[in-house]
Amino acid sequence: MIPVTYYPLSMQKQLVKAKATLADSPYSPFVNERVLVPENHALKIQKGPLAPDAAIVPSIKALNEILDLPPGTERVGYTVLEGPTLYVQSHVQFPGSTPEMFKWWFWWEALDSRRYMIWFPHSHISLEAEDPVRLADPTKTFEERFYENRQHVVELMGPDLFESVIRFTDPTVLGFDLAKLKKAGIEGSASGLLEVPGLRDVTVGVMVHLVRSIPGGMELISRYWLGSHPELARFPGANKAPEILAGAGMNAEKMEQVAYELAVHDMTEWHNLASILPKVYERFGTEAPPAKP
Amino acid sequence: MIPVTYYPLSMQKQLVKAKATLADSPYSPFVNERVLVPENHALKIQKGPLAPDAAIVPSIKALNEILDLPPGTERVGYTVLEGPTLYVQSHVQFPGSTPEMFKWWFWWEALDSRRYMIWFPHSHISLEAEDPVRLADPTKTFEERFYENRQHVVELMGPDLFESVIRFTDPTVLGFDLAKLKKAGIEGSASGLLEVPGLRDVTVGVMVHLVRSIPGGMELISRYWLGSHPELARFPGANKAPEILAGAGMNAEKMEQVAYELAVHDMTEWHNLASILPKVYERFGTEAPPAKP
Repeated sequence: MIPVTYYPLSMQKQLVKAKATLADSPYSPFVNERVLVPENHALKIQKGPLAPDAAIVPSIKALNEILDLPPGTERVGYTVLEGPTLYVQSHVQFPGSTPEMFKWWFWWEALDSRRYMIWFPHSHISLEAEDPVRLADPTKTFEERFYENRQHVVELMGPDLFESVIRFTDPTVLGFDLAKLKKAGIEGSASGLLEVPGLRDVTVGVMVHLVRSIPGGMELISRYWLGSHPELARFPGANKAPEILAGAGMNAEKMEQVAYELAVHDMTEWHNLASILPKVYERFGTEAPPAKP
Repeated sequence: MIPVTYYPLSMQKQLVKAKATLADSPYSPFVNERVLVPENHALKIQKGPLAPDAAIVPSIKALNEILDLPPGTERVGYTVLEGPTLYVQSHVQFPGSTPEMFKWWFWWEALDSRRYMIWFPHSHISLEAEDPVRLADPTKTFEERFYENRQHVVELMGPDLFESVIRFTDPTVLGFDLAKLKKAGIEGSASGLLEVPGLRDVTVGVMVHLVRSIPGGMELISRYWLGSHPELARFPGANKAPEILAGAGMNAEKMEQVAYELAVHDMTEWHNLASILPKVYERFGTEAPPAKP
């Protein structure tokens, strides 16, 4: 594991703001300025995009194949697919964490932007859940609180401000087969559809985050598609995505830049969360309302 | 020492081009894709600009003070000074190199852009010396070949193309005192004035690169100023710099971004050169025409 050597100037300034915001809070001990990432992960994504045949499309068939990758399959990388559609993949190990902690995290951090900040203090600015009352309701399961409860997130993606709405949902809604999820040992999901703020029910992308226990901890399996890929047409309002994305200047060239920045972002934020989650859970885990199983 | 974790997409593509360009040349064994930098250097410059009183201005007095810094003085960093003027400083160690190799390098690499490329294959695109015949003339000293023989360089600075003209000159022309240079053990210089291509004799900046032997190798002392600082007014045509830089959009905000990118660039290119110079000199050093002392 090696420290990230570069943060855009805007992220350097955001870190200063985050430290000031968190200074008198119980979250400040968890601000990590020296994020460690695996050398092979950083060096893989800095060597240009994946070969087209090393990337997968967001079809139902391809989604389910993620759950049982042949040995030797490349697990990190980025590229641009038909659409244009940016694509990013990663597998991240969380030593000492469990899927239960992961689910707890996604409940807990969504209730306060200061908690969202410690996840990636160079980047994360604010998070607002559409229905915080439902999110905090102890009579509901994690899934009942979390799914279809949109989150508006503001963060830096590379040097630039990036706003999105995440419509977390059951992975079967995305196309995963329940039996295959169980067979693969998946115990938690923070997956969903991506929307543009202010444009409700227009799907511009899909984000997959699935977790399973591994010896000594937890593995997070992530995939992102953002764009107008034909295989995204099955999702609500996806027919409107091409015009919206083109209007935002997301041509293939820009998509490739954002894809690499998202790959760096993904690597940094998840490895940072992996480094703090067991300690954060130890300190704040008991604050959770008892979750209905 | 840790590998650089991030290269902008444009640099990833430039590396691919450089490898293709160099593939059948004797220079390809010296393309280093895994550049190592000192962790404390990378982490220092990713924590925002230097405090104003930790930076120095390009006055004659301040230049000479670089040669004898008090222990504990911060040796790396970047910021924006009055003008606005970007400022970058670094001290880089070259284990196994000598000032003689450094001077040889600056003669040798300026004769062929492919040699310039191996210095920083993610970034360096082309270099053209104004008078290559004089540069290669074995009857002249290094200084006679090199000084006032402008070099037009094209490279990536962060994600963006950056073109400049370097007017290498004797460090005493910049304001260094010859006796103080000698007392400090300085044995070579690749310092000079910075110009904008197409605008001859308009100084927009000063670049200092001084080398001296240290136990086990060589130390490179670097400083950069680019802008309209009042202390640059003593150089040719500097009165025209404010208009030129403002016309290029170099306001204080942009200057700060370029300053950080230059600090990253400086750290990467010099540590990469440090890692290859002894081997390059061993392989090609005998090709040099016998230099007049």
